[in-house]
Amino acid sequence: MNSFGRIFRISIYGESHGPSVGIVIDGCPPGIPIKRDDFETDLSRRKSGAKGTTSRIEGDHPVILSGIFNEYTTGAPINIMFENTNTRSGDYSDFREIPRPGHADFVASKKYLGFEDYRGGGHFSARLTLGLVAAGVIAKKIIHPVKISASLIEAGGIKDIEQAINEAIKENDTIGGIIECHATNLPVGLGEPFFDPAEAMLSHIIFSIPATRGIEFGTGFAAAKMRGSEHNDRFVETSGKTLSNHAGGINGGITNGNDITFRVAIKPTSSTPKSQQTMNFKTGEITDFTVKGRHDTCVALRAPVIVEAATAIVLADLQLLNNVCK
Amino acid sequence: MNSFGRIFRISIYGESHGPSVGIVIDGCPPGIPIKRDDFETDLSRRKSGAKGTTSRIEGDHPVILSGIFNEYTTGAPINIMFENTNTRSGDYSDFREIPRPGHADFVASKKYLGFEDYRGGGHFSARLTLGLVAAGVIAKKIIHPVKISASLIEAGGIKDIEQAINEAIKENDTIGGIIECHATNLPVGLGEPFFDPAEAMLSHIIFSIPATRGIEFGTGFAAAKMRGSEHNDRFVETSGKTLSNHAGGINGGITNGNDITFRVAIKPTSSTPKSQQTMNFKTGEITDFTVKGRHDTCVALRAPVIVEAATAIVLADLQLLNNVCK
Amino acid sequence: MNSFGRIFRISIYGESHGPSVGIVIDGCPPGIPIKRDDFETDLSRRKSGAKGTTSRIEGDHPVILSGIFNEYTTGAPINIMFENTNTRSGDYSDFREIPRPGHADFVASKKYLGFEDYRGGGHFSARLTLGLVAAGVIAKKIIHPVKISASLIEAGGIKDIEQAINEAIKENDTIGGIIECHATNLPVGLGEPFFDPAEAMLSHIIFSIPATRGIEFGTGFAAAKMRGSEHNDRFVETSGKTLSNHAGGINGGITNGNDITFRVAIKPTSSTPKSQQTMNFKTGEITDFTVKGRHDTCVALRAPVIVEAATAIVLADLQLLNNVCK
Amino acid sequence: MNSFGRIFRISIYGESHGPSVGIVIDGCPPGIPIKRDDFETDLSRRKSGAKGTTSRIEGDHPVILSGIFNEYTTGAPINIMFENTNTRSGDYSDFREIPRPGHADFVASKKYLGFEDYRGGGHFSARLTLGLVAAGVIAKKIIHPVKISASLIEAGGIKDIEQAINEAIKENDTIGGIIECHATNLPVGLGEPFFDPAEAMLSHIIFSIPATRGIEFGTGFAAAKMRGSEHNDRFVETSGKTLSNHAGGINGGITNGNDITFRVAIKPTSSTPKSQQTMNFKTGEITDFTVKGRHDTCVALRAPVIVEAATAIVLADLQLLNNVCK
Repeated sequence: MNSFGRIFRISIYGESHGPSVGIVIDGCPPGIPIKRDDFETDLSRRKSGAKGTTSRIEGDHPVILSGIFNEYTTGAPINIMFENTNTRSGDYSDFREIPRPGHADFVASKKYLGFEDYRGGGHFSARLTLGLVAAGVIAKKIIHPVKISASLIEAGGIKDIEQAINEAIKENDTIGGIIECHATNLPVGLGEPFFDPAEAMLSHIIFSIPATRGIEFGTGFAAAKMRGSEHNDRFVETSGKTLSNHAGGINGGITNGNDITFRVAIKPTSSTPKSQQTMNFKTGEITDFTVKGRHDTCVALRAPVIVEAATAIVLADLQLLNNVCK
Repeated sequence: MNSFGRIFRISIYGESHGPSVGIVIDGCPPGIPIKRDDFETDLSRRKSGAKGTTSRIEGDHPVILSGIFNEYTTGAPINIMFENTNTRSGDYSDFREIPRPGHADFVASKKYLGFEDYRGGGHFSARLTLGLVAAGVIAKKIIHPVKISASLIEAGGIKDIEQAINEAIKENDTIGGIIECHATNLPVGLGEPFFDPAEAMLSHIIFSIPATRGIEFGTGFAAAKMRGSEHNDRFVETSGKTLSNHAGGINGGITNGNDITFRVAIKPTSSTPKSQQTMNFKTGEITDFTVKGRHDTCVALRAPVIVEAATAIVLADLQLLNNVCK
Repeated sequence: MNSFGRIFRISIYGESHGPSVGIVIDGCPPGIPIKRDDFETDLSRRKSGAKGTTSRIEGDHPVILSGIFNEYTTGAPINIMFENTNTRSGDYSDFREIPRPGHADFVASKKYLGFEDYRGGGHFSARLTLGLVAAGVIAKKIIHPVKISASLIEAGGIKDIEQAINEAIKENDTIGGIIECHATNLPVGLGEPFFDPAEAMLSHIIFSIPATRGIEFGTGFAAAKMRGSEHNDRFVETSGKTLSNHAGGINGGITNGNDITFRVAIKPTSSTPKSQQTMNFKTGEITDFTVKGRHDTCVALRAPVIVEAATAIVLADLQLLNNVCK
Repeated sequence: MNSFGRIFRISIYGESHGPSVGIVIDGCPPGIPIKRDDFETDLSRRKSGAKGTTSRIEGDHPVILSGIFNEYTTGAPINIMFENTNTRSGDYSDFREIPRPGHADFVASKKYLGFEDYRGGGHFSARLTLGLVAAGVIAKKIIHPVKISASLIEAGGIKDIEQAINEAIKENDTIGGIIECHATNLPVGLGEPFFDPAEAMLSHIIFSIPATRGIEFGTGFAAAKMRGSEHNDRFVETSGKTLSNHAGGINGGITNGNDITFRVAIKPTSSTPKSQQTMNFKTGEITDFTVKGRHDTCVALRAPVIVEAATAIVLADLQLLNNVCK
């Protein structure tokens, strides 16, 4: 469904080419200071415009429909809406016959019986992550003094991101990348057994971000090759600090006070400008196909701030849950 | 919290050395045939006893406390309980002073203020996966004709699992491994945007399994190194069948009718028989420490049937959710 | 929290004098035809303007922010927003010192630590029922051919509603009333034991409507005075039709195919124009107090369409839940 | 579904004549002292045995399957199970042909397609309230110093309960009654707008108790006949204390620090020993019918402790929710 979280609960809505996208946040404590400018930095990090990002430029101005009064959260639901203005729906008219490879066009049409808004990916568009970023701005304030920082550490298989983008553009193709995220200054105790360990909640929201293909915490897949005596992090302080951090800051699903670290694999943008072969579902024939519309060479470029927001949302929720019994 | 799922909703309970572990399943449709013998195969796959598994042997007989009548599900909640019989709690008495590295001892003690049942890991024990396996047996019947198959494809960094176990035993250490899971015969349409895509629901439950460190779908982390034109799976049939399956059977979070494939990284067992250095929280001094108790050399050996069960639980839930609007 | 429902799940937002009020509907099936005009009849039934209702007149035009495309629901969340235009916040400036008797001013200020939007009752305003009515319009289409009809059967203790209003206006006071609701053409099977019986779900949402003080199903409180042999409804058809309907169409929490009937008690409007004595929380003294602002003599006049909407929302949800296992 | 609550979340299971009934409590804080004897008083108040109650006598010994260690809650799920021992299932064999009037037999058979456990009402039996009472014992400890007290104030239409029972027995019939409940020592602030006001949560769980037909808070249905100036409770202390308590301790869905008061209408026991006419669904003919089995003359006699438990469960949940933002 379109909601996530136990206490700090977000509900997302909107379509790429409909009137708006946005998010409703329920369960936000009262008294969090929020100014409209607070959203600017993160929203502009998510924005396109740089080399390797789409030429569809939206203002992305957050319209606060409820829940904030005199620049503080009130405790009532916060609805943050973004109007869609720069849409060109004509570009998407052929997808009913030739569903784009790697996209949700085919499954959406089957699942929603043809009633889905197919323009620009509709409700499946990465444009819906705008709401995530906005909610993340508020979540980051709740979890203070925890700090979250995500960055793209590899694109198209190489560490030099600029070079990777240039190569992909030259090849008229698209690339993916790997995002690494760190959260610091964490308290001990965030995460709820059995089904809401910190990794489970984080992976749940991270896989809700379009184009995610994998996630690993701490040493991750490499841990599967280690010995227990190597992998165990030995305690060196009664605060819980450990010498190494193979566990990525989480034991038994609960934060142990060390930094949370994880990596996310983002697939290459499905909408490649390169010609592809696929099937025309009307004629049943294999056909050459080139995606029209305006797309990112590398969506992973815009994803770090989304990963940060998602992380903040989960940590805010787990922190509020953990307060329950105090 | 200790429940998971939207419709087919499971609630887990129990502790390693308490009276029992088990699971309550709500939202199971009536009329699913269930005999006590149906649980046997999967429970014995999870059981210890083979080389590399713990010497704690439990009967693991499922006691059905409710919800099944005349060998059919009734539509009421199903409670399946397993008594704990073979417990040796004396083994665990020192963990308050010297929390075991890599375990939940430290975080549990902080989070539950010292009231947690610390014996054998308590509620954090992998013994709680018994309930998952039992629920999986029922879920597998609901999703018929979908078939799920998981296996350990690598342990301690090598493909020959037996050799890996032998080496670890010889080194008096523990190892992890990688599990690969396939689901076949899938319908198109399972998964719910924005926050319950199939990958998000699967990763959520998979990270609830103790010792999971990573998950990747389809081509996974390798996708981050590919070009869009390589990674896109082109359609070859109007059923949605694709030539390749880099997406692991899922587009836009919704099953596309191709096989779901994913891999899970399992860390080496934290309870290694090898001597470790860690801190005594009472004295504040670094001390040599050897885990007592009976443990697995490689928990990953017993995990494939748990991964299968978890997958079946998610697919049953998504299938029931998808029925809603029919 | 601000969401309700299992499948057809509504999330309400807004404040009386903030930018907007509205509702997000998740879990609505695709393919339900919705035109903007469809909302008009029910919204105007809820509107003020008649004798006995407030002089604050709002346009109450639904703005569809998402989820409807080409005049059909798409299966994605539907956000329906109403702008607040006719607000006079100056009227409410004294409530911090003298919380209005019978209102949420005092409890809101304590619970939200003074950060609540206190203007016009803020998030506690009956204006939030606009969203309920809008969601009800969609729900009524889902439950077709079920028909719901609610009416005010008594106001201020008498059956002649017009006379009751006139007397209250003459006395410069406010009155409450009793609403009776019937749902017909029902299928057998709506309602989920143990905690989601039809009465529980209905009462839950009905008590979310401001000013509700009681609810009774079928014979209701009078049933407590009857004998079992009188109260039992005997079956007269294999469809489940019964001779009498003391049960109000529900047995064991599940609809039995007979009409659902219930009555709701609405208290007199708290904002009476009559002078009252209450406490000034700043000075600690008892003071004379007269509510300013524009208010209804009898809120119950506008409530029947809200009760209908709430009923439709619950029945739509229960119907979708009941489809799950088909 | 079979779960209720946001934080203090209960899941009920069991059937009247199956192996057991019971409850799983998730979200209970650690450190609540619980001894087995603590359950005795409330369980014996619920027990049959007095005049007017069924002759089926069960031991009703709580078996704690998880979540309590060294006589304290641990923070993990608490499973409390009651074995069914004194069952006579032969009594119920005819219900498939002649569903009992006033019972769930007919609707259960339709909804669960004939797979329901029909013995003794199965999952619809009032025996499932045992779990509620057990959870209530724990909830009462959480909400300390809040005190809850419910009593039967009227049966069969008269205040003298003993006389009412004697008359009903003499008439070979059954009766209902009215239960009044008070909660005292309440904090300000329990209840969550818009959909979880205190009355909504209380009514939801109260209507989950079999045989409930109505609920009213404070002045209740009589409020519908009052003037606003009469009904408003004027503040007399800055703590929120009011002179009258027509609101039943709740404004805007949130506790205001005054006592919560409500009344519940319980219908007469459907299983009357008196001969009734109803339909034989196999033959389609109207037939004389007498309920066999062992039943209560007045179930309302045993209900006060159940109403108390339900109230405590809701208040515990709302209190924990209210702690979230502290």
